[in-house]
Amino acid sequence: MEVMNFLNEVTSRYPEAISFGPGRPYEGLFEVERIGYYLDAYKRYLSEELGRTPDEVRTMLFQYGRTNGQIHELVARALRNDEGIQVSPESLVVTVGCQEGMFLALRALFRDPLDVLLVSSPCYVGVTGAARLLNIETVHVPEGENGTDPETVRRTVAGLRAAGKRPRALYLVPDFSNPTGTCLPLPARHQLLELAEEDDLLLLEDNPYGFFTRTGSGLATLKALDRRQRVIYLGSFAKTCFPGARVGYVVADQQVQAPDGSRTLLADELSKIKGMVTVNTPAISQAVIGGMLLTHDFRLREANKPAADFYRENLAVLLDCLERLLPPERREAAGIHWNAPEGGFFLTLTLPVPADNALLEESAREHGVIWTPMRYFYPDADGDADGGAGPDQDPDPAPDSGGGHQMRLSLSYLTPQQVTEGARRLVALLERSCL
Amino acid sequence: MEVMNFLNEVTSRYPEAISFGPGRPYEGLFEVERIGYYLDAYKRYLSEELGRTPDEVRTMLFQYGRTNGQIHELVARALRNDEGIQVSPESLVVTVGCQEGMFLALRALFRDPLDVLLVSSPCYVGVTGAARLLNIETVHVPEGENGTDPETVRRTVAGLRAAGKRPRALYLVPDFSNPTGTCLPLPARHQLLELAEEDDLLLLEDNPYGFFTRTGSGLATLKALDRRQRVIYLGSFAKTCFPGARVGYVVADQQVQAPDGSRTLLADELSKIKGMVTVNTPAISQAVIGGMLLTHDFRLREANKPAADFYRENLAVLLDCLERLLPPERREAAGIHWNAPEGGFFLTLTLPVPADNALLEESAREHGVIWTPMRYFYPDADGDADGGAGPDQDPDPAPDSGGGHQMRLSLSYLTPQQVTEGARRLVALLERSCL
Repeated sequence: MEVMNFLNEVTSRYPEAISFGPGRPYEGLFEVERIGYYLDAYKRYLSEELGRTPDEVRTMLFQYGRTNGQIHELVARALRNDEGIQVSPESLVVTVGCQEGMFLALRALFRDPLDVLLVSSPCYVGVTGAARLLNIETVHVPEGENGTDPETVRRTVAGLRAAGKRPRALYLVPDFSNPTGTCLPLPARHQLLELAEEDDLLLLEDNPYGFFTRTGSGLATLKALDRRQRVIYLGSFAKTCFPGARVGYVVADQQVQAPDGSRTLLADELSKIKGMVTVNTPAISQAVIGGMLLTHDFRLREANKPAADFYRENLAVLLDCLERLLPPERREAAGIHWNAPEGGFFLTLTLPVPADNALLEESAREHGVIWTPMRYFYPDADGDADGGAGPDQDPDPAPDSGGGHQMRLSLSYLTPQQVTEGARRLVALLERSCL
Repeated sequence: MEVMNFLNEVTSRYPEAISFGPGRPYEGLFEVERIGYYLDAYKRYLSEELGRTPDEVRTMLFQYGRTNGQIHELVARALRNDEGIQVSPESLVVTVGCQEGMFLALRALFRDPLDVLLVSSPCYVGVTGAARLLNIETVHVPEGENGTDPETVRRTVAGLRAAGKRPRALYLVPDFSNPTGTCLPLPARHQLLELAEEDDLLLLEDNPYGFFTRTGSGLATLKALDRRQRVIYLGSFAKTCFPGARVGYVVADQQVQAPDGSRTLLADELSKIKGMVTVNTPAISQAVIGGMLLTHDFRLREANKPAADFYRENLAVLLDCLERLLPPERREAAGIHWNAPEGGFFLTLTLPVPADNALLEESAREHGVIWTPMRYFYPDADGDADGGAGPDQDPDPAPDSGGGHQMRLSLSYLTPQQVTEGARRLVALLERSCL
């Protein structure tokens, strides 16, 4: 929230700088003319496939609609094809972007002041921000090189229970995490699912980047491996379709207890909350996304090949440039290193010096290159005491725990040419500051 | 929330019944073909009037956007023309329907457990539901025949302060209230504004029905009369454009203290919250509503003349039918009466017998007509203790306080022919139950 202000401000003061800041999708693949085409595809589907009359089509596009959405069946078909996730459309909630999905899930699950949300740390600010809005205590579970370590989660849960708290859920991005780019290995996915069952924990799986792999095929999602409804899947069309539609979804196929004591689907509980937040997701937005799903025969992974190729090239170019400009002996002597994610939008660069606002300012002013201090994705980054990990909850801190010496480099919003030039400028900065 | 389930269930069991239930706008005036036209109008505005390049237009339609919206200037122009409300575009927050606006305003204003929200009662369930979601205590201020009585508000505020509470704001629909149809007279509007200033209260003015008057011209809104930023105006395009866009807005031109102590515009505080709820209102939806505003030269009141004529006729037909079928001597002997709103979607019918779920069931089954029990719009209607008015906060209860003997009749979703036939059926029900 607040913490991003400095980045935004630097970006506006140095408009000519190359920015590795924004995690936005590349725009070159969007076509304005297609909006009408997708809308028409959805209207044809309503009339020709579902047999809706013109009056009924009008109602679906213009009127208040079903709280949990009208494209839930189309989304369920795409999930089956793209992720091997088999769920009934009734367990889906179509939301105003993935952010609303997080917000609804948190509001539904966290009812008691003793309930605690675990987040893989460093963490996407959207989920910690939503938790703060709802006065939910968050505890940060530090990531390793391969993302969330199940053993660390287990110890954290045990420590919290011993302290009288109730760990309810763990939020994580298993595939190409924002901000670090890490990817959770398959064995760890199975371990997390077992742990969730044993420790009565829910896993909030957020998966905006899963299609964008260097190898072309990714790992199975937690939800695809979930046999006991331990995973709430937070879906987004922001990167696989486009952000301006603000359409996301939640898969909430858990049986839960309603406030009146009866058993119900978690999706139905989310619906009651959504009715009081946005009533329903805009029909026009749903129609455009529905039209895209129809047009691509419910196979967004395939439709996203050009985008995946684009991001893969950017990632390869950035890694190549860094490798070339900072060969092993040179970077090792200086204490510089970076990870080499298998996909996604982000990469972590670690320095021997603080990667703070002062260095960012110098970077933009002197070298024309912008990046995000990793510190922003840690608790208390803006000096706010919001229940971040204390020593008790942080049993195995990495040497650079807190992200103070790290940059998040995002490559989604640049062309390969800009990535090349940006890497050159970045190395110029490092030469001045730590080489 | 829960309480509406019975109504929905009855409606689905008796699909042939004529329903005075839904408060939805009439659909006969919507045209599916116009969606593309409005989108094009907005794109033309971006390129021709604002001089945006094709790439910039693409960004505005497809990418993440400004949290508080991109059509705020267009909305401000319409507010000036239609309502005489003069506000800077920066004090507007474009929201996912008016519901999100309520939610954001409540979250921003209510930070302390002692803070209390006053609601004009009976009350639209959207605002009491949002308050419940945020654990905000609500106190119900009973309406009179002319809506919210300023003296009752003053006494309620004094009583709450004496009890150590902090009344922060009063929610009301001054024009043709949902559910009762009452309209606040001009002197009472001025008194409420004075009271708000004296008692340090904010007024949350919700105005979805203001254009739909029997006389053609309505009263000045509270916001148009507001000289001291006492009114937060909750705007909706659901009835004046269409609900499926889910576009509303909040006028929040108050200077407030940010959490860090600095002075800021309330709209900017709402922005921080919105970023954690929906990120931004879908660009496609904003574009369609923006296109409508442009097409109608920022004069929605004029553009809504056909709709206003339609609702006016329905209201006149219903009042005529009731008058004809239940002449004064007949209804007075039986203890039946109704109000005659000057506009809007709703009318209140009072019976000598309970207008409860049992009567609703009989009404649908035996007489083929459906309506909403007014009880639904009172606190504790679903047996939930949510801080509703106790005797202390309810100094002047009307004899039918609690709505147990009242129906809400909505006429927005029917044709005049259906209204005529529905009135006949309704009187048949009354003949069986109380004549």
